[in-house]
Amino acid sequence: MKSLLQKKIDMKTKPLGALGQLEELALKVGLIQHSLEPVLKNPTMVIFAGDHGIAADGEVNPFPQEVTWQMVHNFLSGGAAINVFARQNGMAVKVVDAGVKHDFQPHPNLIDAKIAMGTNNYLHEPAMTEAQCDAAIEAGQKIIEDLHADGCNVVGFGEMGIGNTSSAALIMSALLNLPISECVGRGTGLDAKGVTKKAEILGLVMQKHQVSSNDPLTVLQTYGGFEIAMICGAMLKAAELRMVILNDGFIVSSALLVASRLLVEVLDFCVFCHSSSEYGHQKMLDYFEAEPLLGLGLRLGEGTGAALAYPLVEAAVNFLNEMASFESAGVSGEG
Amino acid sequence: MKSLLQKKIDMKTKPLGALGQLEELALKVGLIQHSLEPVLKNPTMVIFAGDHGIAADGEVNPFPQEVTWQMVHNFLSGGAAINVFARQNGMAVKVVDAGVKHDFQPHPNLIDAKIAMGTNNYLHEPAMTEAQCDAAIEAGQKIIEDLHADGCNVVGFGEMGIGNTSSAALIMSALLNLPISECVGRGTGLDAKGVTKKAEILGLVMQKHQVSSNDPLTVLQTYGGFEIAMICGAMLKAAELRMVILNDGFIVSSALLVASRLLVEVLDFCVFCHSSSEYGHQKMLDYFEAEPLLGLGLRLGEGTGAALAYPLVEAAVNFLNEMASFESAGVSGEG
Repeated sequence: MKSLLQKKIDMKTKPLGALGQLEELALKVGLIQHSLEPVLKNPTMVIFAGDHGIAADGEVNPFPQEVTWQMVHNFLSGGAAINVFARQNGMAVKVVDAGVKHDFQPHPNLIDAKIAMGTNNYLHEPAMTEAQCDAAIEAGQKIIEDLHADGCNVVGFGEMGIGNTSSAALIMSALLNLPISECVGRGTGLDAKGVTKKAEILGLVMQKHQVSSNDPLTVLQTYGGFEIAMICGAMLKAAELRMVILNDGFIVSSALLVASRLLVEVLDFCVFCHSSSEYGHQKMLDYFEAEPLLGLGLRLGEGTGAALAYPLVEAAVNFLNEMASFESAGVSGEG
Repeated sequence: MKSLLQKKIDMKTKPLGALGQLEELALKVGLIQHSLEPVLKNPTMVIFAGDHGIAADGEVNPFPQEVTWQMVHNFLSGGAAINVFARQNGMAVKVVDAGVKHDFQPHPNLIDAKIAMGTNNYLHEPAMTEAQCDAAIEAGQKIIEDLHADGCNVVGFGEMGIGNTSSAALIMSALLNLPISECVGRGTGLDAKGVTKKAEILGLVMQKHQVSSNDPLTVLQTYGGFEIAMICGAMLKAAELRMVILNDGFIVSSALLVASRLLVEVLDFCVFCHSSSEYGHQKMLDYFEAEPLLGLGLRLGEGTGAALAYPLVEAAVNFLNEMASFESAGVSGEG
């Protein structure tokens, strides 16, 4: 299949390789779908939201914790950046309450998968119990099963959770064996002093728990959050169902880090959508040996990088399906 | 207007600056349209095609010269990469015969602005006469006037012309006072030996004509091509009419180089869509102090980079118009 796809790409009316990364992307999607004529169906952004024990006191996050549930409302009203970009690019948006410290009214686009009213504070104890972590992973799997049953074969991952860059940094530090200072960034907008303080606090957390880098599930359970665990489960199921996974920024990539330690093949299903300006993301991408599609200096989360990159995924599939070949167009080849 | 636009951007439900380059882009489009609610209307890709005297003997180009007219047919039949991407992204495609060595039948999407059956060979004489160069610039202006009269306010530029990376390299070398070897690249696919030979030939051309870097019109006239001169005129008119200009890769940027030497303000209307993998393009972008939106390793021309980047321009405008503010969404600001 790979050589057939490559041949089809090379016969298009363009110099060899002239579409750069889009050619690799076309090949990837063709391989995922095992098809010379891949089709993207019911593209959906799923935004997982959760609260974090650490965030209640505001030491690692400039925005107050209630912004998590307020932004969930914003997602459901269609007013957030992810709504704007998904709407523009023809993607549905589903919002998952993975564990937000708030009671929501039912809403057609809200999936209730609440594990608890926020995680525990890892300053004192693991963010989740083992049972909670398992439940979150399973809930993520179930959400993707349902999406797939509804005909979706391309899913973008987004997240919302005040404090969740701290969880992502802890996971990264633990699994990649990197000093926490190389994993901590500005999040939603800390200044240099704030970043230093955040690194100090998270350094203490790392010392307290001492989780082995060979135990991805315990890393996930210890550092949270519910949204990250749920994304991890969702990605594993998406790979099993051979769906195209649109990876987003720092937090979603931390979920992928855990998922890829559990099943390395998940990476074959991932499109790396953008390189976030959150410190640490580029190092994660290097670890994945990923060349992301966009580098716009985004650091918003919500899955915005995935939604913005989606037209490029469409472009890759469309050129493969719609472009003329040298033969069909009657164009002379290289002399 | 600038401070009002910036304030509107900063009040959106996101951390300050979190949408990175899209925020600068929203500001730019707002300033171009002098509006807090900019609107993109009838987006159109205009592909200028022309033949080059130098290309007849195949010394600087791996593809034969007839590929220029064959690709014009491909554009008109909708089978080229630019057709696929423009169609996907809701852009019209117009093709301009700026001077192709071929007689075309009339076609609703083909604009006949033929100056001659290809340029002269600059190995022997200037590519154009002064009158031809003027006529090409005027034709480009007229095409944009007509587009604007039809309600278009955002125009992407593309080109087709076997041999035109050589013209672009000569223009770059002459106007930026750089050795030709720093401006010459693989074009549609030369190998290292071919690139060396191309640089040697073009070095002789530079020596023969000795055009001053302070005389952009003579540079344009001497090195061609008709499609580049026409794009130059079109860009100047687009700026005058305050349209958004989608700049593409190496060849289109060489036209912008000339245009910006004639009227520096043209740069205020430009969106730099991508960084081409054609050697020399990044240096041109550095000269413009441009941060392009995409860096996908494209080197196809046709305006493909502009068409692929267009959804990001839409995203910038859409977030400015559609995203909720902290106040309207009831979301708490930074603590």
